[in-house]
Amino acid sequence: MTKPRNNPLILTPGPVSPPSFVMEAIAQTVIHQRSDAFVEFFTDLQKDLGYLFQTQYPVLSFPGTGTHAVEMALFSCFSEGDRVLVLDNGKFSHRWEVFARSWLDVVSLSSEWGQQIGMERLKKRLKEEKTGFKGVVITHCETSTGVEEDLEEMALMVRELAPGALVVVDAVSSLGALPLYIDAWGLDVVAGASQKGLMNPAGIGFVSLSPQAQARMSNSKGGAAFHLQPYLEYLKDGSYPYTPPTQMLYGIKAAAAAIRSEGLPRRWNRVHSLSQYFKKGVIELGGKLFGEANSDALTVFELPGRECESIKTALMQEHFIEIAGGQGHLNGKILRVGHFGPIVMNDIQSCLSALQQTLS
Amino acid sequence: MTKPRNNPLILTPGPVSPPSFVMEAIAQTVIHQRSDAFVEFFTDLQKDLGYLFQTQYPVLSFPGTGTHAVEMALFSCFSEGDRVLVLDNGKFSHRWEVFARSWLDVVSLSSEWGQQIGMERLKKRLKEEKTGFKGVVITHCETSTGVEEDLEEMALMVRELAPGALVVVDAVSSLGALPLYIDAWGLDVVAGASQKGLMNPAGIGFVSLSPQAQARMSNSKGGAAFHLQPYLEYLKDGSYPYTPPTQMLYGIKAAAAAIRSEGLPRRWNRVHSLSQYFKKGVIELGGKLFGEANSDALTVFELPGRECESIKTALMQEHFIEIAGGQGHLNGKILRVGHFGPIVMNDIQSCLSALQQTLS
Repeated sequence: MTKPRNNPLILTPGPVSPPSFVMEAIAQTVIHQRSDAFVEFFTDLQKDLGYLFQTQYPVLSFPGTGTHAVEMALFSCFSEGDRVLVLDNGKFSHRWEVFARSWLDVVSLSSEWGQQIGMERLKKRLKEEKTGFKGVVITHCETSTGVEEDLEEMALMVRELAPGALVVVDAVSSLGALPLYIDAWGLDVVAGASQKGLMNPAGIGFVSLSPQAQARMSNSKGGAAFHLQPYLEYLKDGSYPYTPPTQMLYGIKAAAAAIRSEGLPRRWNRVHSLSQYFKKGVIELGGKLFGEANSDALTVFELPGRECESIKTALMQEHFIEIAGGQGHLNGKILRVGHFGPIVMNDIQSCLSALQQTLS
Repeated sequence: MTKPRNNPLILTPGPVSPPSFVMEAIAQTVIHQRSDAFVEFFTDLQKDLGYLFQTQYPVLSFPGTGTHAVEMALFSCFSEGDRVLVLDNGKFSHRWEVFARSWLDVVSLSSEWGQQIGMERLKKRLKEEKTGFKGVVITHCETSTGVEEDLEEMALMVRELAPGALVVVDAVSSLGALPLYIDAWGLDVVAGASQKGLMNPAGIGFVSLSPQAQARMSNSKGGAAFHLQPYLEYLKDGSYPYTPPTQMLYGIKAAAAAIRSEGLPRRWNRVHSLSQYFKKGVIELGGKLFGEANSDALTVFELPGRECESIKTALMQEHFIEIAGGQGHLNGKILRVGHFGPIVMNDIQSCLSALQQTLS
């Protein structure tokens, strides 16, 4: 039996339940954004973000979710009618496709939800291209399906076959969870969020910008506070164009300190171990990984012959453990369990044990 | 002498220092946004927002600041090339003018910073108009100058002389601080933020939408997460289109409970009393209200013959009280002290006493 808790054990693939040291940091007294104390804090925070993103280039932060981060990245780096290739094989990558299609010249490279796009298809499409892409939008780990692409190899291939294209990455589920080297892999624009691997409440988005991406800043109209340019300009003075969400940024700083102290590679390995343990456990219980769901950030699985929503409800009602179901047409067909952020082995074991009891 | 504190007494006109009960609410455990518990919480929150905004119509909330709120309001309710009248007499109202001008057909009605636009000039301009405005953008209280317009009368006049125009209001500094009756005054679109009268950390923006405003929802391109339409649609099911900033919304709920318990009119009267007391004190110390600075939300004043930045610095260094200086070309020329949110009479008295010692 799991021991009684005041609050449910949250194992959804985000938002995570932030650890208490993060919430204590957020509860600190606010400092005014035009004070020296803020400049000092914000300049320090940039170093932490540089570590988390493994980049020497600016990492902008702003009020928002992962969706804001990706859309602000596209909005800021492309201009109306720009031709971009969007990899589309899940709820979130499809959202970028729909958003881009509303104002850009979009070529979509899609797979069924649960299937990778893969290197071969990307290679073929890039080689076929006559007009030339200004950007390639890759979702590193698709949270709706648990499918991860080989981002390092894909970026290398885009550099080789479409050298004029910016590599734009949705790293919302991978930041702080999966190996991610922004500069070493040559990723131009990388979008992340606070409520997953960074162990914070939802509400802060991030975008890193390579020099190539900065040089491409668009003149997109109709969304000034949605554009990254002012954030980039103010950052030079350790400052912020609008009232900064300072308290939320305190939380990011606290999480960054914890992650730096553990070390990113050790943290990535820990997520990998949780993932392997959980995936093995699910298969032993008669479950089946969904499609090509290969990511360590989360496990996405089916339970052949069982109705997933009732299993999910039983886990919550009988064991006070919250996991996620499927989104869109996958509703009721799959379950999703996160392995990042504050989640530890004991949590994963509790979840497997609860699953076992529910299924038996 | 002011008594020693661990943290400075923050009397800037936002961001305010949130009271501890707000921060404790924010530190509550997250609930997943697709759970019944979230729907219940969010539906309740809507009732609170309806009270705070004095409206029966939807009040949308999202990650953002006041700037996001106003720009999202404009972006969502107008389409490229729409003709709008923007009242422009300070840093923030000018920001709306610049933003609108980048994609709308803008007519600007401007005054020097520190001067009201006033009823007569608005009346004259509305009567002269041949083409017809689709919207009139009014900043209720301009935080950079302390100048307030007679919003109730202005809205009435727009209804009469430009019946096809949406009344769009920047209420960032007035929400929770100044009398504001959205439905009774016929305000179509009202933008607010968390970090002023609502006593919360920065990071949440709000926009209320009248039925007329909802019917006008634009098809603006290039900023999906910047558009209010998805928020409006999901709200019908007590839901949120993206990961909601749930913890921050807990803080709003806690503040709303405190404000409902005090009652809005009593709170507005309290802000009025603080303002009158402080304004009288400043004048007794030889200060002078800046221009037509008439708002109760904050006091904006000059100190003839004194350099304002050094006074501000001395207040911080010697009395641990943080107030704000002037923005833009008013830097060094004025001081600004807020009267809303968690600020009480004792704070205002401490500030006057510190000012007296600094000036003597």
